[in-house]
Amino acid sequence: MASMSTLFAKTSTPTIPLPRTRQTHLASRLELPLTRLPGVAPAREIGSERLRRRRRGDGPGSRVGCSLIEPDGGALVDLVAPEGAAREARRREAAMPGLPRVKLSRVDLEWVHVLSEGWASPLRGFMREAEFLQTLHFNCLRLVGGGAVVNMSVPIVLAIDDAQKRAVGDQRRVALVDADNKPVAILSDIEIYKHNKEERIARTWGTTAPGLPYVKEAISNAGNWLIGGDLEVIEPIKYNDGLDQYRLSPSELREEFNRRNADAVFAFQLRNPVHNGHALLMTDTRRRLLEMGYKNPILLLHPLGGYTKADDVPLSWRMKQHEKVLEEGVLNPDTTVVAIFPSPMHYAGPTEVQWHAKARINAGANFYIVGRDPAGMSHPVEKRDLYDAEHGKKVLSMAPGLEKLNILPFRVCKILTLFLCPWHTFSTEFSR
Amino acid sequence: MASMSTLFAKTSTPTIPLPRTRQTHLASRLELPLTRLPGVAPAREIGSERLRRRRRGDGPGSRVGCSLIEPDGGALVDLVAPEGAAREARRREAAMPGLPRVKLSRVDLEWVHVLSEGWASPLRGFMREAEFLQTLHFNCLRLVGGGAVVNMSVPIVLAIDDAQKRAVGDQRRVALVDADNKPVAILSDIEIYKHNKEERIARTWGTTAPGLPYVKEAISNAGNWLIGGDLEVIEPIKYNDGLDQYRLSPSELREEFNRRNADAVFAFQLRNPVHNGHALLMTDTRRRLLEMGYKNPILLLHPLGGYTKADDVPLSWRMKQHEKVLEEGVLNPDTTVVAIFPSPMHYAGPTEVQWHAKARINAGANFYIVGRDPAGMSHPVEKRDLYDAEHGKKVLSMAPGLEKLNILPFRVCKILTLFLCPWHTFSTEFSR
Repeated sequence: MASMSTLFAKTSTPTIPLPRTRQTHLASRLELPLTRLPGVAPAREIGSERLRRRRRGDGPGSRVGCSLIEPDGGALVDLVAPEGAAREARRREAAMPGLPRVKLSRVDLEWVHVLSEGWASPLRGFMREAEFLQTLHFNCLRLVGGGAVVNMSVPIVLAIDDAQKRAVGDQRRVALVDADNKPVAILSDIEIYKHNKEERIARTWGTTAPGLPYVKEAISNAGNWLIGGDLEVIEPIKYNDGLDQYRLSPSELREEFNRRNADAVFAFQLRNPVHNGHALLMTDTRRRLLEMGYKNPILLLHPLGGYTKADDVPLSWRMKQHEKVLEEGVLNPDTTVVAIFPSPMHYAGPTEVQWHAKARINAGANFYIVGRDPAGMSHPVEKRDLYDAEHGKKVLSMAPGLEKLNILPFRVCKILTLFLCPWHTFSTEFSR
Repeated sequence: MASMSTLFAKTSTPTIPLPRTRQTHLASRLELPLTRLPGVAPAREIGSERLRRRRRGDGPGSRVGCSLIEPDGGALVDLVAPEGAAREARRREAAMPGLPRVKLSRVDLEWVHVLSEGWASPLRGFMREAEFLQTLHFNCLRLVGGGAVVNMSVPIVLAIDDAQKRAVGDQRRVALVDADNKPVAILSDIEIYKHNKEERIARTWGTTAPGLPYVKEAISNAGNWLIGGDLEVIEPIKYNDGLDQYRLSPSELREEFNRRNADAVFAFQLRNPVHNGHALLMTDTRRRLLEMGYKNPILLLHPLGGYTKADDVPLSWRMKQHEKVLEEGVLNPDTTVVAIFPSPMHYAGPTEVQWHAKARINAGANFYIVGRDPAGMSHPVEKRDLYDAEHGKKVLSMAPGLEKLNILPFRVCKILTLFLCPWHTFSTEFSR
């Protein structure tokens, strides 16, 4: 086995101005003091009120399932019509002649999937301009009735071109159709606004260099307008690729965690095969959570299943490898849930890792494992990584709306061995 | 007189998703209901709890001055050594041999000025990395001890090059010196981190197009490192250009507003001569505030005095024009304070307008007038404005940390006449 080590890393804590008065002191969540049990190595715990409560033993009793972290906005969004008459009515409505049609690209359809199941709760459809602007400028959305915000760092938007905009005219709703022209959803109470691609790209990726994979795939050739509105989906989105059984919705995941009596859920986002560093890390995280007083921490091993760039390992291969990891007992099937996260990949580093974490809150995870350079990639033009490898976890730890999530930073050494995978040795790291 | 009109504009309210439950409803501050008195045209009032209290007549009594809006973080930052022994000690300390020196550019010195007087309260010096990242990603800084944030949208940073970084080595403090090598301040408890110019520019301006004035002036040729720390300034920054008497600090402005028994302060940021549209707007705003129940609203006419691009009207000319406007009675000197805002100009549109507003909170303003395309300019490469003209006021109205500020949007027609100014007719608008 190649040399490796797995450890919880103490994030380098940015020095902050010495406080003169408490009131004028600026905080970084990274500087919160570590809570440490005797004999337990310091996991970085942030926003861990619930954790402390558990350790004090005054958490909820037998109905452990009910203690799953609350979804953003208080309730999971579900935009799919219930089976039966309601669904058929929506299907007929979407097929009505005269209703303008917007054809969805592959990535658009993945976003419909994401929205329909409430991964982006409380968002109820493609963003209107107020949500788009808040996402670009603040990485969060303000809730009605007070100062509370939810995190939202990547724009979930639908582009249309001039001809489509003209076709929509003054109408208030449109049908969204798939590549075969089959209606998938209705978008209602719509708002059409300008798609300033340059600004969207600059603020999301921190660069406008040509060659960003998501930009090439989904933005460069997209229309110059964005259409936002309330999404009403006809039926659950399926891909019929033999992997749909892994595509559990946030609601189904919560049900599964409840069924297993989980009292902590720790999520691990990945878009590459599991290697031994990952496996040890995940096993070790469970051990630590047990030591902290949790009775039954469950791992959500959560590969990203939407659009990825051409040189990433294909989803079907990755899922085979993940299955093997469970079959071979490298990870314990009783305490592990493997499911597919349907989001497309932005490769937007510190901006995107917030989305990855926020979506897992909605799926019931209250711990999120983050490595170096999450959602990062090489700069498309210059010979360097696009993002500072430490910025992802720093930004995640300071992000508005993610205070309730416990961030678990880690580092894995460079030389790694994969389990049960055609690729045996990699000299790079796969956690991101 | 050319055709013109001045009006309070009802900001176009972005349509937002219809609420299913209140909890999952996303808010835009733009959609808050208007409070309207009989006969009073609807000024857009946001965060106007204090306003409502006043109207109910249960505001504070005679000590009106004490009711000025609270500075961000609760107390104004003042980083200048008190006159006398303390100042002389700091001067000697800064001149000590062995203390590494960092030479300040003109723009750097303007930021030292801004920081020293507390315009950026509660910031106590050039940003360390945690503050820089929060500024770039969230346009706000989290305060210690809870979820409260203050707005902070433009990075206030100091760049050094490789040689300077080597010279600093492991030392914990440096002297900041002016163009003549005269020590101006000490920066202590320093942190040096990478200056990723591309990312800074993309996230601040929403473009990386060549030709952005501030980028050319202060970033392109700056060093590849940023040095943050606590700033200790030796003495007040002076320019000896005949205009220093206009450079009132936030503390001096608050004193002046108190002296005049102001119970509302409405700030008007500008970087061009006053034209009749501006003048009518400012007069009209005061009238409206009186109608709303305020007894003595004071106008802060607050031209920006730091770096501006070459084709802007020079500060000295602008100040002459502003003086004339008061002398001629176009604006009432009893209810107007003219002062210089020492910040350099970014021309960063919706990002920068937040800074302009936030700094005026610290100076005591609880109303902020915002026009179309604030802090905007033409795209440096393409034939269009860099920013959507409506985004500035929309972003301002939704910005975290600015909830307590009342935003007063307005529009002025295109053809305007200037008062008492060599330029008689402009076909563009000067409010931005």
